[in-house]
Amino acid sequence: MTDFFADIPKLAFEGPETDNDFAYRHYNPDEVVAGKRMEDHLRFAVAYWHSFAWEGADPFGGRTFERPWFGEGMDLAKHKADVAFEMFDRLGVPFFCFHDADVRPEGADFAETTRNLEEIVEYFAAKMEQTGTKLLWGTANLFSHRRFMAGAATNPDPEVFAWSAATVKTCMDATHKLGGENYVLWGGREGYETLLNTDLTREAEQAGAFLQMVVDYKHKIGFKGTILIEPKPQEPTKHQYDYDVGTIYGFLQRFGLEGEVKLNIEQGHAILAGHSFEHELALAGSLGLLGSIDMNRNDYQSGWDTDQFPDSTPEVARAYYEVIKAGGFTTGGTNFDARLRRQSLDPQDLILAHAGAMDVCARGFKAAAKLFEEGKLEAARAARYAGWEDPANAAMLRSDLASIEARVRDQNVNPQPRSGQQERLENLWNRYV
Amino acid sequence: MTDFFADIPKLAFEGPETDNDFAYRHYNPDEVVAGKRMEDHLRFAVAYWHSFAWEGADPFGGRTFERPWFGEGMDLAKHKADVAFEMFDRLGVPFFCFHDADVRPEGADFAETTRNLEEIVEYFAAKMEQTGTKLLWGTANLFSHRRFMAGAATNPDPEVFAWSAATVKTCMDATHKLGGENYVLWGGREGYETLLNTDLTREAEQAGAFLQMVVDYKHKIGFKGTILIEPKPQEPTKHQYDYDVGTIYGFLQRFGLEGEVKLNIEQGHAILAGHSFEHELALAGSLGLLGSIDMNRNDYQSGWDTDQFPDSTPEVARAYYEVIKAGGFTTGGTNFDARLRRQSLDPQDLILAHAGAMDVCARGFKAAAKLFEEGKLEAARAARYAGWEDPANAAMLRSDLASIEARVRDQNVNPQPRSGQQERLENLWNRYV
Amino acid sequence: MTDFFADIPKLAFEGPETDNDFAYRHYNPDEVVAGKRMEDHLRFAVAYWHSFAWEGADPFGGRTFERPWFGEGMDLAKHKADVAFEMFDRLGVPFFCFHDADVRPEGADFAETTRNLEEIVEYFAAKMEQTGTKLLWGTANLFSHRRFMAGAATNPDPEVFAWSAATVKTCMDATHKLGGENYVLWGGREGYETLLNTDLTREAEQAGAFLQMVVDYKHKIGFKGTILIEPKPQEPTKHQYDYDVGTIYGFLQRFGLEGEVKLNIEQGHAILAGHSFEHELALAGSLGLLGSIDMNRNDYQSGWDTDQFPDSTPEVARAYYEVIKAGGFTTGGTNFDARLRRQSLDPQDLILAHAGAMDVCARGFKAAAKLFEEGKLEAARAARYAGWEDPANAAMLRSDLASIEARVRDQNVNPQPRSGQQERLENLWNRYV
Amino acid sequence: MTDFFADIPKLAFEGPETDNDFAYRHYNPDEVVAGKRMEDHLRFAVAYWHSFAWEGADPFGGRTFERPWFGEGMDLAKHKADVAFEMFDRLGVPFFCFHDADVRPEGADFAETTRNLEEIVEYFAAKMEQTGTKLLWGTANLFSHRRFMAGAATNPDPEVFAWSAATVKTCMDATHKLGGENYVLWGGREGYETLLNTDLTREAEQAGAFLQMVVDYKHKIGFKGTILIEPKPQEPTKHQYDYDVGTIYGFLQRFGLEGEVKLNIEQGHAILAGHSFEHELALAGSLGLLGSIDMNRNDYQSGWDTDQFPDSTPEVARAYYEVIKAGGFTTGGTNFDARLRRQSLDPQDLILAHAGAMDVCARGFKAAAKLFEEGKLEAARAARYAGWEDPANAAMLRSDLASIEARVRDQNVNPQPRSGQQERLENLWNRYV
Repeated sequence: MTDFFADIPKLAFEGPETDNDFAYRHYNPDEVVAGKRMEDHLRFAVAYWHSFAWEGADPFGGRTFERPWFGEGMDLAKHKADVAFEMFDRLGVPFFCFHDADVRPEGADFAETTRNLEEIVEYFAAKMEQTGTKLLWGTANLFSHRRFMAGAATNPDPEVFAWSAATVKTCMDATHKLGGENYVLWGGREGYETLLNTDLTREAEQAGAFLQMVVDYKHKIGFKGTILIEPKPQEPTKHQYDYDVGTIYGFLQRFGLEGEVKLNIEQGHAILAGHSFEHELALAGSLGLLGSIDMNRNDYQSGWDTDQFPDSTPEVARAYYEVIKAGGFTTGGTNFDARLRRQSLDPQDLILAHAGAMDVCARGFKAAAKLFEEGKLEAARAARYAGWEDPANAAMLRSDLASIEARVRDQNVNPQPRSGQQERLENLWNRYV
Repeated sequence: MTDFFADIPKLAFEGPETDNDFAYRHYNPDEVVAGKRMEDHLRFAVAYWHSFAWEGADPFGGRTFERPWFGEGMDLAKHKADVAFEMFDRLGVPFFCFHDADVRPEGADFAETTRNLEEIVEYFAAKMEQTGTKLLWGTANLFSHRRFMAGAATNPDPEVFAWSAATVKTCMDATHKLGGENYVLWGGREGYETLLNTDLTREAEQAGAFLQMVVDYKHKIGFKGTILIEPKPQEPTKHQYDYDVGTIYGFLQRFGLEGEVKLNIEQGHAILAGHSFEHELALAGSLGLLGSIDMNRNDYQSGWDTDQFPDSTPEVARAYYEVIKAGGFTTGGTNFDARLRRQSLDPQDLILAHAGAMDVCARGFKAAAKLFEEGKLEAARAARYAGWEDPANAAMLRSDLASIEARVRDQNVNPQPRSGQQERLENLWNRYV
Repeated sequence: MTDFFADIPKLAFEGPETDNDFAYRHYNPDEVVAGKRMEDHLRFAVAYWHSFAWEGADPFGGRTFERPWFGEGMDLAKHKADVAFEMFDRLGVPFFCFHDADVRPEGADFAETTRNLEEIVEYFAAKMEQTGTKLLWGTANLFSHRRFMAGAATNPDPEVFAWSAATVKTCMDATHKLGGENYVLWGGREGYETLLNTDLTREAEQAGAFLQMVVDYKHKIGFKGTILIEPKPQEPTKHQYDYDVGTIYGFLQRFGLEGEVKLNIEQGHAILAGHSFEHELALAGSLGLLGSIDMNRNDYQSGWDTDQFPDSTPEVARAYYEVIKAGGFTTGGTNFDARLRRQSLDPQDLILAHAGAMDVCARGFKAAAKLFEEGKLEAARAARYAGWEDPANAAMLRSDLASIEARVRDQNVNPQPRSGQQERLENLWNRYV
Repeated sequence: MTDFFADIPKLAFEGPETDNDFAYRHYNPDEVVAGKRMEDHLRFAVAYWHSFAWEGADPFGGRTFERPWFGEGMDLAKHKADVAFEMFDRLGVPFFCFHDADVRPEGADFAETTRNLEEIVEYFAAKMEQTGTKLLWGTANLFSHRRFMAGAATNPDPEVFAWSAATVKTCMDATHKLGGENYVLWGGREGYETLLNTDLTREAEQAGAFLQMVVDYKHKIGFKGTILIEPKPQEPTKHQYDYDVGTIYGFLQRFGLEGEVKLNIEQGHAILAGHSFEHELALAGSLGLLGSIDMNRNDYQSGWDTDQFPDSTPEVARAYYEVIKAGGFTTGGTNFDARLRRQSLDPQDLILAHAGAMDVCARGFKAAAKLFEEGKLEAARAARYAGWEDPANAAMLRSDLASIEARVRDQNVNPQPRSGQQERLENLWNRYV
């Protein structure tokens, strides 16, 4: 037992009226909603990197946090893990997620780095066994080290491609060993700073070949989890290839991988791409690509990834409504890809940030589930398209322009607009959230 | 002859030093650049809608222009055409583009509207014959009339789908009759205002079926031009399905149409989607989808489509560099999807706006062509990826993670970053523009 | 009695559990919150322009609404007024707001236009007497007619300045006659399209002289209401002089008018300027400039003024918290500067949009009032600055650099960061909304 | 002599046709433009921080540069200075700029830190004497260290205020000692992350008192340079108080400091505030506040401060036109607040980036100077406002609404719009750039 969270109790559900800061007001893991325990619906995960590896720096300032585990070496890495699992326990979250670079010291070479990872994986495995905490997903950090400055899979240097492929192998092995439910690829440097020195065609081919190998390796080792790509349009690069859901869908089709890979969708990344979060979720749902979510919030007036904890019940409800509509999570879950503000220095800030976010999510989820179950919104949606139930209308989709033109002319078709009733539906929505 | 441009002479090339407002400084149609006449490279077109149909209104103010052809009826439509062809002649542009709604009066019903279109097509045909002006592309306006408020192909009402299909048939007929080199689809209302009343899955199927019918009809009537989709992310709608190049690529693959359809890419729409214009052009080029361009400029600080005439030679050069790299225009060209500022009331403003834009384009094109011909930029780009010429490296793209991991481990691969030289390439660029 | 809202009953408060679309769930005008009736706190107003004058057009499409009062002439203007007052009654809103151009037909010249305004003012006066509806504010539309295309007070043409001054006089007269509680200036065209043809210095002097005359006239006629400027950064123009609260504060000081003029602050305009709504309200409150609010919402992914009805209780609560902190409204109120989506064609959409927005506002206001009354947030804020209560610290603000430097050096001052507790405060906030 | 730039010669002007990468094509310091040497117009400065202190990290990746001077201690600081002055010499730039934190090691306490600064100031003084390089401005870094995480002058903790005041004293002393021509304040942390924990009123008073002390100290020590504030709207904070030119103007008036302080305006910061660079310069010029410029470029599609070297001659020309119109620089100059891309690893990249930017600036400046001298643009601008030369019109600015209304009514004033000729002026502009 470390003393990092010494003064902080394990959180329990106490209901909306409690005065206790360290309690849940809305998240009751055992409460059954729409036929399933909330914990099993929401599948909360803590992101190791923000909570334990991030030091509080930003582009204009250095480290603000003072954590006893900051520094190099395996002992500190294990101390960090000790604190992390204590936090999972305090919060009662069922899952966590990590990059290799979050959890193990960098070694002198690839082999040593891999051994370090393997050692920490053993350490995790024991803790997971003890605590029951599970791994939602693992991933490789192919963007922080300077070797990745020009990309990983899409690097002009084949040696970086090789290093990246090798690293992903070790991270997939680690994820498999720990029983991870998904493996995620976020291509933070897969993009460009300037078109002037970039060969888009070649880089796309590299990316396609790389992803194919990832899928092949999954099958080779018998990993049953889902391979997930996480879209982001830019930052750190000027342009990132995994721009948004629509773009990745095109990429997957191009390389014949649309049945093998799904998406991990983040609110902040959706916003940066000019989309609402619910749009990206709805589109992924419609295309059969919705895998998991990174729940956070970006400041709407800031043009960079602020990765804040969600604080708006109505917005979270919109997101969960799309998840529910798509059938809910299978291997996916709700990962908090969110970090403390760099002024939030205290251990209790870490706990309170997650607890508040979990309550916001629980409240939003329950609202969305109720709305979906009661069916009024779906009924209104269906009514709007009811004309297509007429077989003569449906047949037009398999017809031709000349026939339709004849029909319009002969029947003197003259369509009359009907109200879209947006405000009425917004009011309906607001009865639930 | 109308008297609208009575005081304005036909413009000729006079070189950069002339003091004449009504002359070209850089655009010399007969000058041979990279083995071809500039006119044949650039293939300038005037957009009928902005120059002749737009009245100078914006969301906060009404019509500012006073044009003798504003109003209803076939006589005014013909007067408008007279002025338009006089402008094409003054400018010496080889092409124009139009929507049905720009050129013909709306009739009482579909049949009358079609007859009106046919009458004006006859009128155009005679003028084109006389003047030698050609049609770069035709298109249907499926967004201005209230019947399209909830979409055209993607409308919840099958009657609107029918009307839209019938209209596209008539517009394709008109384009074919006039020898148009392309047919364009811009889905200004193909999107949604709110997800709450929208069925994304159904609307995508409608869009796919519609596009298939357009392609079929092209083949049926023997139209040899190119079918082009024009991306735009939003405005007028909250979200438009043809968001950007990457999104449309996914859509085309989904419906098996990627060999049949190309793209008409606009600077202002690229910007609204969070991309640079050159990005969208480069990506389309890389995917084999680059068809034609709408050359304009959006204000970088305004979040709506300002559709201004281009005024920056370096920016235009970036765009043409990508066009040249993709092999130049075949059926496509440079359409000015640009409108006067609403305070630019005078006939001469129309002429000067186009003349200035053509000069900017000519200057930018020549710079780009020279840079491409001299090859320094392409040589630098190739050098950056030269490691992939090694067969052992290239073979990795058909390898597997475990083999690559073994190689990294065994050979102690340790990639060393090399400078991306962005600023050096920007300097190189600036020697040309 | 018109038949426009024939099927729609007068709305009453029925509480959150009602199934009635035409009822209030949260807005109970007579409920006492923080010592005052909700109606007297919130002071709701309907905007005449959006609800009765706007036709449903956008930059890519024409009129979608079909209202029996659309057209020219005094009879239609009176019919429009009849419907408007019926809507005020249905909703039970205490106030409305209008521009001259919303309510009267344009005449052949200034004199006739003024007579038209006077006639409709008489008509309004009678209706207001009958119904008890009051005028929150009047204003002049100095942006829609083409004469204003280059500005009103800041126009290069002195005749437009004259016309604008004369028009404001008539609108202030009208507002005064109707007992308006404020007079608003929104300078939609006070700005520029291009710096190339603009003299910023001269235009600022024109604007200052104009505002001085407005203030003088207020005092001359004994108008007791507040003069309000409404900030907006751009749209319709490239740049608008009344950019945001901070900019107007500088302008008012420059012309010595900071004691005479306050601000009408709109959510959508704040967003366009890169600010949160609550920022602009808090800043205005801090500077003593908070007058009234235009409550609406802009889509966060759209770069133009979408003027939607508010639908987010937490966001509205943030805004009202700042209003409450600044002492609440005196002459100001909550004007819905919001319009139906152009697909919302039906009379009931108008009613439901307002009713939903009023409920969102009421719910948000009550949450904010409770949080403010219970004082936990203000206590946390005060604690953060408590060090300044020490007189030795406070004295530094009247000290000098050299003395402070000596103190730092001599006392070996070494400040230690303390947590900003942002997430804790966000959790606190979420207990109320 | 260090060996960092060993292979790189001193750059000289060789004209546009040279093939030498290490030469100026447009910047000829001794060329006389508009009656003065280019060097004396442009007054180029290198920013110490980006070129020598920044390590190539971004929010998603660590240090990419490997510089022999990275690390702690006075010897490395002096080695860094040696390289810096060698670069100033290679480039032939007359000025540099620095923060305290860029140039000296942090000490164990304030006193030691100050001694370190004093030692490096001595070292600089000797080098400046030898080389003739001058100091454009000095400044204090009050944002990188964690003690400033909640602000410097506006910190809730009075000890941080004290530390900041003391630090500014030492930096003003250093700047004065080195003959700096300006002293700059950039309040990177003077703002807030959340309104929830912020007292805007108190923080503004702290900021006003702080600035008053800075001005007082300037006079006390006889510093003849200009005090400059640098606007930026956000990043690193959610909101920064020195948002833009208009906001700072209001702040200066509030505290009676508008005659004592001018502005240092940066392209990237202007863009982030939603303004064009030329707007901010023109506004500052109009208000008598234009002091100096930070010349860089922000990517137009990125929402954070990319601080790239300028590469667009037309854009730079727009900026210099406003500088020239405001009378040119007095104490100010052109500081390159621009950094290499983090992939630009090589020493020559540093040189080429500056050389390219200087050429772009020189070319843009010459175009702007020629356009201003020939007077066509100013003549067109004056013609647009010529109506105000009529004394009867000018008198309206000192009139009253009622008199003007009588005039409009009696004279039947009916203003007629005239073309704003934007495109004609854009064409005129393009003849020069």
